[in-house]
Amino acid sequence: MFQDFTVRSAPENGPPRLAALRAEMAAAGLDGFIVPRADAHQGEYVADCDARLGWLTGFTGSAGFCIALGDVAGVFVDGRYRVQVRAEVDLAAFTPVNWPEVKPGPWLIEELPAGGHIGFDPWLHAEREIADLRAALSETGITLVESKNLVDAIWADRPAPPQAPARIHPAAFAGEESAAKRRRLGAALAAQGAEAAVLTLPDSIAWLLNIRGNDIPRNPVVLAFAVLHADGHLTLFADEEKFDAALIAHLGPEVTLRPIEAFAPGLRSLTGPVLADPATAPLAVFTELGEAGLAMIRAEDPCLLPKARKNAAEIAGMEAAHLRDAVAMAEFLAWVEAEAPKGALTEIAVVTALENFRAATNALLDISFDTICGAGPNGAIVHYRVNEITNRAVKPGELLLVDSGAQYIDGTTDITRTVAVGPVPEAARDPFTRVLRGMIAIARARWPRGLAGRDLDALARAPLWVAGLDYDHGTGHGVGAALCVHEGPARISRVSAVPLEAGMILSDEPGYYREGAFGIRIENLVLVEPAQKLGDNRDQLAFRNLTWVPIDRRLILAEMLDAEERAWLDAYHADVFARIAPHVSPATRDWLESACAPL
Amino acid sequence: MFQDFTVRSAPENGPPRLAALRAEMAAAGLDGFIVPRADAHQGEYVADCDARLGWLTGFTGSAGFCIALGDVAGVFVDGRYRVQVRAEVDLAAFTPVNWPEVKPGPWLIEELPAGGHIGFDPWLHAEREIADLRAALSETGITLVESKNLVDAIWADRPAPPQAPARIHPAAFAGEESAAKRRRLGAALAAQGAEAAVLTLPDSIAWLLNIRGNDIPRNPVVLAFAVLHADGHLTLFADEEKFDAALIAHLGPEVTLRPIEAFAPGLRSLTGPVLADPATAPLAVFTELGEAGLAMIRAEDPCLLPKARKNAAEIAGMEAAHLRDAVAMAEFLAWVEAEAPKGALTEIAVVTALENFRAATNALLDISFDTICGAGPNGAIVHYRVNEITNRAVKPGELLLVDSGAQYIDGTTDITRTVAVGPVPEAARDPFTRVLRGMIAIARARWPRGLAGRDLDALARAPLWVAGLDYDHGTGHGVGAALCVHEGPARISRVSAVPLEAGMILSDEPGYYREGAFGIRIENLVLVEPAQKLGDNRDQLAFRNLTWVPIDRRLILAEMLDAEERAWLDAYHADVFARIAPHVSPATRDWLESACAPL
Repeated sequence: MFQDFTVRSAPENGPPRLAALRAEMAAAGLDGFIVPRADAHQGEYVADCDARLGWLTGFTGSAGFCIALGDVAGVFVDGRYRVQVRAEVDLAAFTPVNWPEVKPGPWLIEELPAGGHIGFDPWLHAEREIADLRAALSETGITLVESKNLVDAIWADRPAPPQAPARIHPAAFAGEESAAKRRRLGAALAAQGAEAAVLTLPDSIAWLLNIRGNDIPRNPVVLAFAVLHADGHLTLFADEEKFDAALIAHLGPEVTLRPIEAFAPGLRSLTGPVLADPATAPLAVFTELGEAGLAMIRAEDPCLLPKARKNAAEIAGMEAAHLRDAVAMAEFLAWVEAEAPKGALTEIAVVTALENFRAATNALLDISFDTICGAGPNGAIVHYRVNEITNRAVKPGELLLVDSGAQYIDGTTDITRTVAVGPVPEAARDPFTRVLRGMIAIARARWPRGLAGRDLDALARAPLWVAGLDYDHGTGHGVGAALCVHEGPARISRVSAVPLEAGMILSDEPGYYREGAFGIRIENLVLVEPAQKLGDNRDQLAFRNLTWVPIDRRLILAEMLDAEERAWLDAYHADVFARIAPHVSPATRDWLESACAPL
Repeated sequence: MFQDFTVRSAPENGPPRLAALRAEMAAAGLDGFIVPRADAHQGEYVADCDARLGWLTGFTGSAGFCIALGDVAGVFVDGRYRVQVRAEVDLAAFTPVNWPEVKPGPWLIEELPAGGHIGFDPWLHAEREIADLRAALSETGITLVESKNLVDAIWADRPAPPQAPARIHPAAFAGEESAAKRRRLGAALAAQGAEAAVLTLPDSIAWLLNIRGNDIPRNPVVLAFAVLHADGHLTLFADEEKFDAALIAHLGPEVTLRPIEAFAPGLRSLTGPVLADPATAPLAVFTELGEAGLAMIRAEDPCLLPKARKNAAEIAGMEAAHLRDAVAMAEFLAWVEAEAPKGALTEIAVVTALENFRAATNALLDISFDTICGAGPNGAIVHYRVNEITNRAVKPGELLLVDSGAQYIDGTTDITRTVAVGPVPEAARDPFTRVLRGMIAIARARWPRGLAGRDLDALARAPLWVAGLDYDHGTGHGVGAALCVHEGPARISRVSAVPLEAGMILSDEPGYYREGAFGIRIENLVLVEPAQKLGDNRDQLAFRNLTWVPIDRRLILAEMLDAEERAWLDAYHADVFARIAPHVSPATRDWLESACAPL
């Protein structure tokens, strides 16, 4: 099992650690110190040695930060974690803050009317984050001060950095040799007037070098920095122990491997203009470059868009992974339908069974994120993660929402299905059908080239909106190919203006959540591709479906669908059956046949 | 009749006028001169004395410009006017240029490889327009030079400026006294740090002062400039002859009327920071302010958003105007259905009849734009205006598209209906139903506060997109209240990021055009308002319909509509009948009853 359900938070550890931190602050002449969740690579998951926020406060969520002052320590968490934070931290020592409604700038101004010096570790904050905070604090008497990491100074038993070996990501799945990628991106750098680009995102580096790793749970990356030169040469800064001879040979003579400690000095030895991404690269990178007198080009990480545009081999890998995953999902859903109505399952049992069904593929490298499995009212908690305390019985007459995914060698999956446990709860059928209509609207969409996720988001929501309903999350996120399940830069969201391009893979996952009652989400992954010519032969893009798992027909009010939606759903289910049936067990085949019957 | 159908263009006048302009250019030491369609107020329509582009080139379209060089004179026109321009200008003297695909900067660089001096009248170009062009020409050896207007110098029989009297726009329709508006906007100016704002848009001034005029066809405005002070006082620069004693009294003691010639000197006499809108105010305004040493705040015209947010009286006026207009439209459509199938009508006869039906209300001040009336293939020409040459018979078995509107004392209308003439052309029914579905999707939409037209545009297009169809115009534009039929700042368009706000009135007008065959457009006006609470009581906005005219049921494929769309249409038609039937003639009542029957 990759997941466990232990409650790890120990609120009682917080106060003495906070006291020790305050002593360090005083010794350093600081009135405060910022402890972020992020590591130097701004990832969604961090290694144990970088889990400073959790170690200090007890809060284990995947986003947030603490600002410790002399007499108050705010723990800033977003809407997902408002309840969780109160269970995990000692409320006598830490004060939860509703972020981003309350931003750190105004909070500091409120707490420090007389001003003060706030320390931060410049390796853990992107340049833009600090620039924004400095702008909010301008003319207030509060100053942000670069500092050594004061948490590390007091963390006596800090775990060692991860040391998992890196591995080759075969060309058969990558579809393009690293050298070709490096030359292609190098030429683009030269065209931008840059001699080199600093890379600080592990998935950018993994994609560019066709390597994968195991340093971080759920994300198959190696913790590393890199400098890509305009001539295609690359210097990789990482733990050299992780690279065996075969991997060194794979990297080839144009890639130089250096210890990770050599990164900062390496920056200072560069010449010519250097590109770095202010949205993701640590402030320290810019400080090093600046102190070395180097010209800087602030621009987006040059790997982001090329990585998002999947090539034919990556698409083929994702298709194979999705077929494999769909078989496991079909076995799982058939098992749920057989077992859950008996009333003896819990959420933990469901999560465990699902991981076991995936493991039975003999191809599971990891799950792609911690499974969200919410029965009844727990389904309405959008980012719910079950543990031994919250674990709930799966009761007949309720809905069960399961959002999960896998990491395989050839691809990454992410799927949500919501099913009725035994008797169908009538009140859920109208919103379920509205969510389905929105999900189909995205799946069927065709649109003129150039539009962004923002321009399509309303299609997923309109069926809910007209009934006064909505969901408070994006409609879709980018997904990596055998990489991170959350990948930029494109999204289907009202805040995303990045044009959708052929080769991008996104999730299509509208939902609806009725607090205290149930949650509904239906999620497939879809691939952007040029649309087949139709009608007036306009140049359009469209989505191609990647996920082949039945959608619970019992929850659909068929009379709410129009003829085209109904035709889409019936064709989808016929397709699911044709693709998956040959690979499932006999019992599951029977279930699948009925689950895929026309409406 | 407000409209006539005379072909006015005289291509033979172009060459001698161009030769005279070139002589002026040479005398002024210029290698080129820009002649825009716009006047100093950047309106869609211009007075005869400002129709310089038409006078010089023969081109009578509503947008475009000419750049005259020594040996070539480009006439830049957009997609609407590609055919028309070739009929209206002497092609031996003038070269049509496909704008905006070809932009003036690259065109100049191509035509003047050795560089040169290009003159322009700084009163006829907004500051931003010139800044953009200068940026495109930077480091090219081509310089833009402010100049007196060289067309005016050679235009011997130039018409006098319009001298139509201005009139009071009664408080009953305006809903807020001018003094209150001026104080409200003045306070906002003060908050922005401005002592005064320069107003150059006639509809802003008309709205702010509760006055209307007749200087420009279709737009009920007075040509004027104004300076609004932070204390609510205003200096109005306009032809004083247009203001009688009653109007002077209406303006009150806080408004000072000055001759329009006093505007430039008036700018120089200001103190303190002055706000002006670089997107619409002439470059000359900024030059005057700059030469006077005044600090400038470049920001949006402060009237734009307040004018777009209609108050209760303006909404009531628009409703009354739309009811009146709908009665005229019903009489017209009943007449079309009775007469057109006989095969004896022409487009001109249809336009004439429609204007007469509107005139019969005894309330018609003007039409709100020149009627677009396209029979059969002419319907596919999106901005088609019939004249004596293009006039086409209205033939049974074809579609007839009529897009028209009226100016009344209480409101402005804009409506498009597409009807079958006699036997229904089968091929039009599928696209007509798709256009209708898109139009209904906007009409029924509810959405969270904060979204812009860009976020809703896809709802109108998705039914077409999935069939490989689309339309190459926006879905909706803002509409003034007894003002301009095209009004900013909000639109329903993929390029509009202005949030929709309660009180805004927009058109909802998807379409479909099959070249050489037919055009389809269905247009209602809709008002943004807080949505009635529904479902989860979310804070949503919604549209309320303003236009009450039947949609041709014969063109609808009912089986393509879903249950909610069908219910919307039947309810709409029932509402149309209930509102309009009491006011129409007996024959039209019978027609209306059948036109409004449930699907």
